[in-house]
Amino acid sequence: MDWGTELWDQCDIIDKHTQSGLDLVDKYVKFVKERTEIEQNYAKQLRNLTKKYSPKRGSKEEQECRFSNHQAFLDILNEMNDYAGQRELIAENMMINICIELTKYLQELKQERKTHLLEAKKAQQSLEGTFKQLDNSKKRFEREWREAEKAAQHAEKTDQDLNATKADVEKAKQQAHMRTHIAEECKNDYALQLQKYNKEQNQFYFTEMPLIFNRLQDMDERRIKMLAQGYILFADTERHVMPIIGKCLEGISRAGTNVNERNDSLVLIEQHKSGFERPGDVEFEDYSQGINRASSDS
Amino acid sequence: MDWGTELWDQCDIIDKHTQSGLDLVDKYVKFVKERTEIEQNYAKQLRNLTKKYSPKRGSKEEQECRFSNHQAFLDILNEMNDYAGQRELIAENMMINICIELTKYLQELKQERKTHLLEAKKAQQSLEGTFKQLDNSKKRFEREWREAEKAAQHAEKTDQDLNATKADVEKAKQQAHMRTHIAEECKNDYALQLQKYNKEQNQFYFTEMPLIFNRLQDMDERRIKMLAQGYILFADTERHVMPIIGKCLEGISRAGTNVNERNDSLVLIEQHKSGFERPGDVEFEDYSQGINRASSDS
Repeated sequence: MDWGTELWDQCDIIDKHTQSGLDLVDKYVKFVKERTEIEQNYAKQLRNLTKKYSPKRGSKEEQECRFSNHQAFLDILNEMNDYAGQRELIAENMMINICIELTKYLQELKQERKTHLLEAKKAQQSLEGTFKQLDNSKKRFEREWREAEKAAQHAEKTDQDLNATKADVEKAKQQAHMRTHIAEECKNDYALQLQKYNKEQNQFYFTEMPLIFNRLQDMDERRIKMLAQGYILFADTERHVMPIIGKCLEGISRAGTNVNERNDSLVLIEQHKSGFERPGDVEFEDYSQGINRASSDS
Repeated sequence: MDWGTELWDQCDIIDKHTQSGLDLVDKYVKFVKERTEIEQNYAKQLRNLTKKYSPKRGSKEEQECRFSNHQAFLDILNEMNDYAGQRELIAENMMINICIELTKYLQELKQERKTHLLEAKKAQQSLEGTFKQLDNSKKRFEREWREAEKAAQHAEKTDQDLNATKADVEKAKQQAHMRTHIAEECKNDYALQLQKYNKEQNQFYFTEMPLIFNRLQDMDERRIKMLAQGYILFADTERHVMPIIGKCLEGISRAGTNVNERNDSLVLIEQHKSGFERPGDVEFEDYSQGINRASSDS
């Protein structure tokens, strides 16, 4: 079951179908391209987000990283930045492995399809040309036989005409003979043309067109195979970075579990304890003693 | 090692530190909220993309789904739509489980911190009030003893004054005696106030403030624990949908492997073969026979 045999009379259908196939590839490439733009945009927004929340060098926030709960937030920002990098990688790989590859292949297929359809057209035109020759040859044969018939009737009439001279009869017979000879030649030519046409028509329907249609079928099947690979790559490109994205998520979880609230309390103590003792009792200042002493001194 | 004991003289530090802790929670909530907005936007763009490329009902594209390579593209669009749904789920769950939860908790902690700091301020003010009382009492004692001293000196001077009457001497001695008595009373009051102040000061440094500081430490450690959980949830929310996203990617791969180029060629045949035989040889039309027959008939 192939197009050459089964669809021998459906050239238009094959033309449209292969065009629609190429259109699908074109559409898929555009779809993937738009996906990469969304992915790039997403990655950019994630990068901007992490940048916005990352502390400036030497800022208060940076100094607070001695506390595990502040440090963990920075770790998360770093992981998000790596995460964004992976989304960019998805976009880049989709662009290189799907869009660029398929676009290149699509150009080749377009060219190949054009060539096949042109060959089909040429074969059709050639067969039509031969048919026109056959038709001309057939019409000439028909015309010449009518002429020969007329000439024969004229010769017969002359032969039976009592007033006709022998010379007239002879001339009419020669004329009829000549016409018959020409008609025979036309008949032979027609027979030759018919043979030529039938040979070419057979060649056309059983060899040339099936070959072209099968080539188009082969081309379409190659296109489909390539497109199917492009479909699979669409998932594989993302699946490829899934383990690294998983590592980013692990990193975020680890940042969370690394937070140690007891230790953060101790860090504050280490950083700020003065080491002074708490104030003891205020002593009694006995003015009366001083005064008594002063008065007893005097 | 706790704040109450080690940072007894660092109330300002504890004030600032706990504020900075709450600020970090606030910052983290804002960060997650912006992430959910990015995620929602990403999902929306993916949804729009799939919608844009999905065929209209009854369109030519929909009819072409008989071909596996066209059908697979629709399958991919469907999977991308599910994929977008999972990204929306990430955004929603982050919003509910992190932003809303932490914001609620943050309000409680803000209130709790305010209460603790207000108590500390009250205790401080109370101690300052008692100190002022002590100072007043001490100053009165000092002043009264000077008065008593003066009165004693005056009594002595009067006693030695040859011109003084016995009544004068008696009056001065009584005066001195009364002054001494008042001064003794002031001294007792000062001693009492001192005792009261020392008791309160001890209470303040060894019981009240340590308790408040330890409560603030406890509060800060609860905040950190909660924040750390929020950090872990940030990864877990996404990790939770990873298997479903993985299934979407598998679905895309399957769509790709389901493409059957041979079968698509056969579908075209089934759909369009006319069933007609290819044209056989064109037959020879022998006009001469007709003519011969006609001429022989006549």
